Amino acid sequence: MAFTFQINNDIKFNHNEDLLAKAEANRPTLKHTVVKPTDLVDIVADSAAFNGFKAVSNQQAIENLPKYTLKKGGKLVLDFGDHQVGRFSIDIDSVGSPMDAPLYLHLTFAETPAEIGVEASTYDGWLSSSWITEEYVHLDVLPAKLSLPRRYAFRYVEIEVKDTSPKWQASFSNPEVVTESAVSMDTVPSVKIDDPMLKKIDEVSIKTLHDCMQTVFEDGPKRDHRLWLGDLRLQALANYATFNDSELVKRCLYLFAGMTTVDGKISANVFTEPKPQPDDTFMYDYSLFFISVLSDYYTQSQDMTVLKELYPIAKRQIDLAIAEVGSDDLLKMNEDWPVFVDWSNEIDKATAGQAILIYALKQFVDMAQQVEPTAVQHYQKLVASYSKAAIDQLFDVQQGLFVSGPNREINIASQVWMVLAHVLDDQANNQLMSKAIESLFPVTGIATPYMYHHIVAALFESNHRTDGIKLIKSYWGKMIELGADTFFEAFEPEDLNFSPYGSPIINSYCHAWSCTPTYLIRKYLVN
Amino acid sequence: MAFTFQINNDIKFNHNEDLLAKAEANRPTLKHTVVKPTDLVDIVADSAAFNGFKAVSNQQAIENLPKYTLKKGGKLVLDFGDHQVGRFSIDIDSVGSPMDAPLYLHLTFAETPAEIGVEASTYDGWLSSSWITEEYVHLDVLPAKLSLPRRYAFRYVEIEVKDTSPKWQASFSNPEVVTESAVSMDTVPSVKIDDPMLKKIDEVSIKTLHDCMQTVFEDGPKRDHRLWLGDLRLQALANYATFNDSELVKRCLYLFAGMTTVDGKISANVFTEPKPQPDDTFMYDYSLFFISVLSDYYTQSQDMTVLKELYPIAKRQIDLAIAEVGSDDLLKMNEDWPVFVDWSNEIDKATAGQAILIYALKQFVDMAQQVEPTAVQHYQKLVASYSKAAIDQLFDVQQGLFVSGPNREINIASQVWMVLAHVLDDQANNQLMSKAIESLFPVTGIATPYMYHHIVAALFESNHRTDGIKLIKSYWGKMIELGADTFFEAFEPEDLNFSPYGSPIINSYCHAWSCTPTYLIRKYLVN
Repeated sequence: MAFTFQINNDIKFNHNEDLLAKAEANRPTLKHTVVKPTDLVDIVADSAAFNGFKAVSNQQAIENLPKYTLKKGGKLVLDFGDHQVGRFSIDIDSVGSPMDAPLYLHLTFAETPAEIGVEASTYDGWLSSSWITEEYVHLDVLPAKLSLPRRYAFRYVEIEVKDTSPKWQASFSNPEVVTESAVSMDTVPSVKIDDPMLKKIDEVSIKTLHDCMQTVFEDGPKRDHRLWLGDLRLQALANYATFNDSELVKRCLYLFAGMTTVDGKISANVFTEPKPQPDDTFMYDYSLFFISVLSDYYTQSQDMTVLKELYPIAKRQIDLAIAEVGSDDLLKMNEDWPVFVDWSNEIDKATAGQAILIYALKQFVDMAQQVEPTAVQHYQKLVASYSKAAIDQLFDVQQGLFVSGPNREINIASQVWMVLAHVLDDQANNQLMSKAIESLFPVTGIATPYMYHHIVAALFESNHRTDGIKLIKSYWGKMIELGADTFFEAFEPEDLNFSPYGSPIINSYCHAWSCTPTYLIRKYLVN
Repeated sequence: MAFTFQINNDIKFNHNEDLLAKAEANRPTLKHTVVKPTDLVDIVADSAAFNGFKAVSNQQAIENLPKYTLKKGGKLVLDFGDHQVGRFSIDIDSVGSPMDAPLYLHLTFAETPAEIGVEASTYDGWLSSSWITEEYVHLDVLPAKLSLPRRYAFRYVEIEVKDTSPKWQASFSNPEVVTESAVSMDTVPSVKIDDPMLKKIDEVSIKTLHDCMQTVFEDGPKRDHRLWLGDLRLQALANYATFNDSELVKRCLYLFAGMTTVDGKISANVFTEPKPQPDDTFMYDYSLFFISVLSDYYTQSQDMTVLKELYPIAKRQIDLAIAEVGSDDLLKMNEDWPVFVDWSNEIDKATAGQAILIYALKQFVDMAQQVEPTAVQHYQKLVASYSKAAIDQLFDVQQGLFVSGPNREINIASQVWMVLAHVLDDQANNQLMSKAIESLFPVTGIATPYMYHHIVAALFESNHRTDGIKLIKSYWGKMIELGADTFFEAFEPEDLNFSPYGSPIINSYCHAWSCTPTYLIRKYLVN
């Protein structure tokens, strides 16, 4: 995920060294593979292509790369055949007279063709331009191996010779990427998926998750490189269904648990380099999802040690969340601790927030039954009263849909989260989603796979299997049709050129919160 | 030096491993000092300043550097107080919220304020833009020490924050340069120079030479980094008068000697990284200067071993040079082996070339007397016949000046080199330069300190001491008045903004062939 900026750098944080030591003890050893490019391509403007550009093979075998000599202004684009996360290197030599000036190169790493096609200097969005993955490099002496120190996420690498001299040209050989991930692709159990599109979606989901699993569950390996709690929840679920690396989930739980505010509140995300550090950004639903991630982890691993150790942190989250509820048993909106739900600021999020509170509260009660049975009754009562308040005050019986906010707005997020929280019984849930399909489909104005995940999950949870499959195919399948090697951070099917940042070059095209179809397929459709 | 491009990459070269091993054995161990900046400055446009820009102290003590925080677009300029050649490093941290995006920096290294003041992207000259000493750097994790791997020549460093994020700023501390040179400034014998301007010119000359003495005598530490034979000759002379590092001269002699063409011709320059390699550029006078450098080296060191070993190479140069002389005993101009004399292509160089041949031939005869006495007579005869041809055919008795080329052009270069070759007797030489002063001073259209050196040397050699001092002061002194910390590659007193490349940002402002005033002062004025 990525989000608008909160600046709260006066907030004081705890650093529980004991918990952080456990996070460190579960730091994965990254696995590496060496990948070579498969083709030389040209990036060509095409209004019909995704973001206006496509990659076209230049019909020269990649084996001919060393025969190319590039002078000032010369360019070539390597195609690595699939999305890669890792370190790039290439051998460079001079051809002609002796090298009488430095070689000046510009390299652009691109997950999609448009990131090369669109001129980087035109970017003027609100997110830092420092995320644009381009480098300028001077080499004083050739031959040399250029081994760039940074990790990149890319399929395509454009190499542009900014200058040589009239006396010699540059030549290139042996390009490669040494990939990095906490997990290996070959550890995923294969399952039988008959539908070829769903099978492909499952594969791309797994590749997306794989490339985001680094020393933490990153949101995106191109951009933010960061552990967000809401994203972690979905990544962990997809991980259980595929790589099943429970240590990495454990590490992330300890990272969040070890760095709460002095009041005990968990940040929306944490940084880990050069040392663990919490962000000063807080979101109501993300804090609650600590409970959800811990609960899911326990369900998956039956690891009572971790559950017992982190239960107090989870309890603190639920108690802080409850304090935001009014005497009418409804969540009050608080600008300083906003409910995220989705990037869209057009939708009212009060009812979705109420549902997420109930959703997390139910998972908390399950954990309390294991760890602190005496507490169960108190929280069970809250589940009941908050659910009752939701039904009494937020459910519009006439329309058969939940409303949200002072204007009694009807939006998809409210329905979806109420379904996922199972505030209604199964039959009413089914009717609710039928109504939602009738009134609110096709979904518009939603750009995040994160929200689309919850819509599909709600369809499956409410026994709308066919609609769930249809939405997976129309949303994630559409990305594949557009050439996705991994699933995107942001995607609006009704506006293919949508970017939350005003330019395709800053978008992340391998973003963890879009990896969930493998979880949905394997949970609801395969077993 | 630097020059127009010859491309002769079909020429075959010898690599005499025995001679190259001796070059390698004399590779110096570079000496290092740590230098810290002395001030924070602003670079300000000022039409009265050299190249239109000056550095003005921003009145903040350099100790306050760590207190500066720079956000997107923020800049600061470090002033290291004098010209430096070495590796730059600086500690960088983030201030504010956690670092949620990479830091993107642009660094510019500048010998003079204009190299920062003039926007680099405007450069469109014929020399490679890869020489512009700017870098773009992404840092993913702060705090970090940024240690740039390349060696730079600079006094000023501009640090520009291209982007951070709205949540944090960058701060900087502990900038330093670890300097590199083959020699130490404190090894130069101090001499008594009463005239304060000459004293300053002597100091700046020595600093210029020091900064160019690296693993070879480089032409310029900012730009070309290369060993040119004509420049070596002047550097070696200045070196004998100051650092007196004879091993570095020996190394350079062996580098040229070890890599002649299969015909025995010596290149105008050689490269040494990653391994010794001759350039495919040839200049008639530069090839002859191998004789001159070897002769000067022997005069200084009395090193008979080196003289004996390299004498055959010197002899080959003189024999190749003689083959270019016509039956009228005059040098014929050859486009494939041009006479350099000076950058200017406006002047006819035939007579200067004839004089340089005689100059080198006389030095060769001196060496032959030591090594091969039987050969002396042959070459002495040539000195006589070439000198006679010069006087008979090139000296215009009426005007009292030498003429050059089919149009009997009168230019300063012809007079100067005939004086230096002592083709006339001392009295006639004195008269010749009196005429030259009368007719050709003030010198115009000459942009190289290389040619100005020979003019001054000719003044001293012809007993025009006062005019020699005056010209040193008006040429090199003028550079000091303009703020020179070291002497420039190119300088035209009558056109202060002259650049051979069309932009001040590509000029080299510490260039070895301008270091000779210390030699001239110490040879002709001090002892």
